[in-house]
Amino acid sequence: MSTPLTWNRKDLIAIEPLTREEIETIFAAARAFKGAMDADRLKQPYLNGRTVVNLFLEPSTRTRLAFEVAANQLSADTLTMTAAASSLTKGETLRDTAQNMQALLADVIILRHASSGAAHYLSRVVDIPVINAGDGSHAHPTQALLDCFTLVEKWGRLDGKKVTILGDILFSRVARSNILCLQKLGAEVTIAGPSTLVPEGFAAMGAHVCHDLKLALEDADAVMLLRIQHERQTSTHFPSIGEYTSSFGLNKERAKWLKPDAIIMHPGPINRGVEIDSDLADSERSVILQQVTHGVVVRMAVLHLCHSYYRGKAIDLPA
Amino acid sequence: MSTPLTWNRKDLIAIEPLTREEIETIFAAARAFKGAMDADRLKQPYLNGRTVVNLFLEPSTRTRLAFEVAANQLSADTLTMTAAASSLTKGETLRDTAQNMQALLADVIILRHASSGAAHYLSRVVDIPVINAGDGSHAHPTQALLDCFTLVEKWGRLDGKKVTILGDILFSRVARSNILCLQKLGAEVTIAGPSTLVPEGFAAMGAHVCHDLKLALEDADAVMLLRIQHERQTSTHFPSIGEYTSSFGLNKERAKWLKPDAIIMHPGPINRGVEIDSDLADSERSVILQQVTHGVVVRMAVLHLCHSYYRGKAIDLPA
Amino acid sequence: MSTPLTWNRKDLIAIEPLTREEIETIFAAARAFKGAMDADRLKQPYLNGRTVVNLFLEPSTRTRLAFEVAANQLSADTLTMTAAASSLTKGETLRDTAQNMQALLADVIILRHASSGAAHYLSRVVDIPVINAGDGSHAHPTQALLDCFTLVEKWGRLDGKKVTILGDILFSRVARSNILCLQKLGAEVTIAGPSTLVPEGFAAMGAHVCHDLKLALEDADAVMLLRIQHERQTSTHFPSIGEYTSSFGLNKERAKWLKPDAIIMHPGPINRGVEIDSDLADSERSVILQQVTHGVVVRMAVLHLCHSYYRGKAIDLPA
Repeated sequence: MSTPLTWNRKDLIAIEPLTREEIETIFAAARAFKGAMDADRLKQPYLNGRTVVNLFLEPSTRTRLAFEVAANQLSADTLTMTAAASSLTKGETLRDTAQNMQALLADVIILRHASSGAAHYLSRVVDIPVINAGDGSHAHPTQALLDCFTLVEKWGRLDGKKVTILGDILFSRVARSNILCLQKLGAEVTIAGPSTLVPEGFAAMGAHVCHDLKLALEDADAVMLLRIQHERQTSTHFPSIGEYTSSFGLNKERAKWLKPDAIIMHPGPINRGVEIDSDLADSERSVILQQVTHGVVVRMAVLHLCHSYYRGKAIDLPA
Repeated sequence: MSTPLTWNRKDLIAIEPLTREEIETIFAAARAFKGAMDADRLKQPYLNGRTVVNLFLEPSTRTRLAFEVAANQLSADTLTMTAAASSLTKGETLRDTAQNMQALLADVIILRHASSGAAHYLSRVVDIPVINAGDGSHAHPTQALLDCFTLVEKWGRLDGKKVTILGDILFSRVARSNILCLQKLGAEVTIAGPSTLVPEGFAAMGAHVCHDLKLALEDADAVMLLRIQHERQTSTHFPSIGEYTSSFGLNKERAKWLKPDAIIMHPGPINRGVEIDSDLADSERSVILQQVTHGVVVRMAVLHLCHSYYRGKAIDLPA
Repeated sequence: MSTPLTWNRKDLIAIEPLTREEIETIFAAARAFKGAMDADRLKQPYLNGRTVVNLFLEPSTRTRLAFEVAANQLSADTLTMTAAASSLTKGETLRDTAQNMQALLADVIILRHASSGAAHYLSRVVDIPVINAGDGSHAHPTQALLDCFTLVEKWGRLDGKKVTILGDILFSRVARSNILCLQKLGAEVTIAGPSTLVPEGFAAMGAHVCHDLKLALEDADAVMLLRIQHERQTSTHFPSIGEYTSSFGLNKERAKWLKPDAIIMHPGPINRGVEIDSDLADSERSVILQQVTHGVVVRMAVLHLCHSYYRGKAIDLPA
């Protein structure tokens, strides 16, 4: 890396304020971490002695573990605080919880919260970096970054590529963050799914709303499936899981509509036989497990960049 | 530090047996750790390769995390065992649990337990150091030490200073340990609160019992508020939270009774608008977040001193 | 250690496929780790930068903590995933959970699972090593290894020694794995207990089935008590805990039947006064706490051997 990276943010709250250059800086750092991860990889030293707090006030395993691995691989210690374990159940405010974590010498807070805007709020009441790990239906920026990084690793650039996002767009912070991130990198985004879950209003974000699934798939260079959260889903937006699957699940018949080299993505955990046919999830076209690994290196990049800026240090990277 | 510190205890169970010199030794070590904690702080190596067990058989987040950070900053690994996760639910005795932790190569046990005397009992059935993190209504020595350390950092010495403890004294291990610690360091202690929660018997400990809140506040150099544990509180000792707040909450009116430079303390988590007015908690007078940070360095000191004594090693400190 | 150790397995699923030489290789490594554990022990570096996942889908504290300490002492990071916290509750398959852990850069998976065969299945769907920490009533190989290691440390060799296993043999993976391991090392095994829990079919494994407790004890060089899982036990196999204790509990009277130097073992957690008299558990004959410590070094050995083989590295050991 001949030119050193520049980064001027303490927090990562959403994709919206990021420039294309900032996104590419994150990818450059992620690529350096990925490249340094060979069979004899040792940890990177950049957060040695630092404490990363996973403040997960909404349940999550996958994202929490990915941040924990990222922090460990940067040599940080991690503290995990879940809703059940937090003093919030004793009536403490979120702000007090976070300021207490800072007073306990935490160096970064990773926040997962059920309320849209919680991460932004927190970033203003503590000095240390705050990374949004999903807030309500607002944003999940590291998920979008790892998804786009996966595509960039495949294609080199996203300019002119077509990506279809399929599923529950309305309630999905993953969709919102991906629409923004894909577009900033030059891709065209189509959204598809049950009309109750794919509102016309998303056209204002620049996404093409398409209610014909065949059309939405046959033109796509990649299709991102969203998880049907059947543990939460009420019957208000579509009649049943079975009906979702029969109308919108990506099965072998529908997969034939895709271009031969189209990529299949899913943020996980997948429901085999619901959003996606089991064989397709395991096929050559699927990059689902690569997304998981990229989630580690992208989060290492975000932690390292925000922490370095906060400490006023130049961005060191593995040689 | 020209004269090396001396320390001759394996365990920290209560404030009662400690001499003033021993308390000052803890503070000297805490001050050394605090001084070594600059922007580029790295961990201290003193418990490298050691395992600290957090045996928290009564729920707690704040104290547990503070001990976890302290252990991490000394380079120890930590194991956490909570009531739900412990073999105690399989009918194992506390003694067997602790002896098993020792057999698992634990080097220190931190015990939080609902029964007064549990930490003392445990210290006799295992060889390794036992640190009391709160046992019933008996003692919470590290809380008292961090509170007094905070005052010493402000004032230099506590001799002749007046400290008022306000709230539920009767059930409070924090109050018991603080009364003893403050007095050993030369301070005068007044206790105040609802008469049902501030029994005259505490006069035997040397505390001045005062039922006139105005008197209790206007003479104080510092006021320590105790947490009203409304998640546990039954109605037997005072009618309602609202009535506690209206009679004993530290609001702006009552704060005017305080000396201009009086310090406001609280062990956290705070109930804003219950024991303390929200603005006062955030005011210049409040040292609540400094207490949290001091909780880390005081616990590092206690862990380091007890572990060094147990290993027969001289007390090394950061330069 | 003049001859370097050889080991050719990625996984440890059961005792059955192991040769006597392989078992002795594990013991040689365990002995090297035990020997390196003096008062100034530091961690061993062999899994530095690696991530060990504790995938515990059936509750367990003791075994999980022993693996966590073993991983820590090899300088690995650990991630813990319990049933409640796992994405399995969101409908994810065990295979997807494990493949996701691998994609998250996990280097080893430790699996505890309620279904017999789960560990074997998992070892075929991930590339990384899988260690069985107990699967249904099938196997608990590291428990058998630590039990036999404890006897070898006492006796030098097991050839010709007689070991009686007493209790609920039928449902016990500990018994199954121990019968196999003891026999491979040359010991003779007798099983005893309520006839409903000690089926004749076990004779096919080479064990001597004995329904006369006096006979079973008076010839034994060691007796292994099994835990009566009274939190799970239904009344179908014996009338009550009290009746088990009165007929099969090892009390002082029955202990007189044992040879003077017979060893008493128990995998823990013990029920004092149920399977074993409290004083006997604490007597000189009992090696219960030595078993716990040996559980750490045996698991360090297994982790180190399987990981080294997987990485294609020679087996390094502490000098």
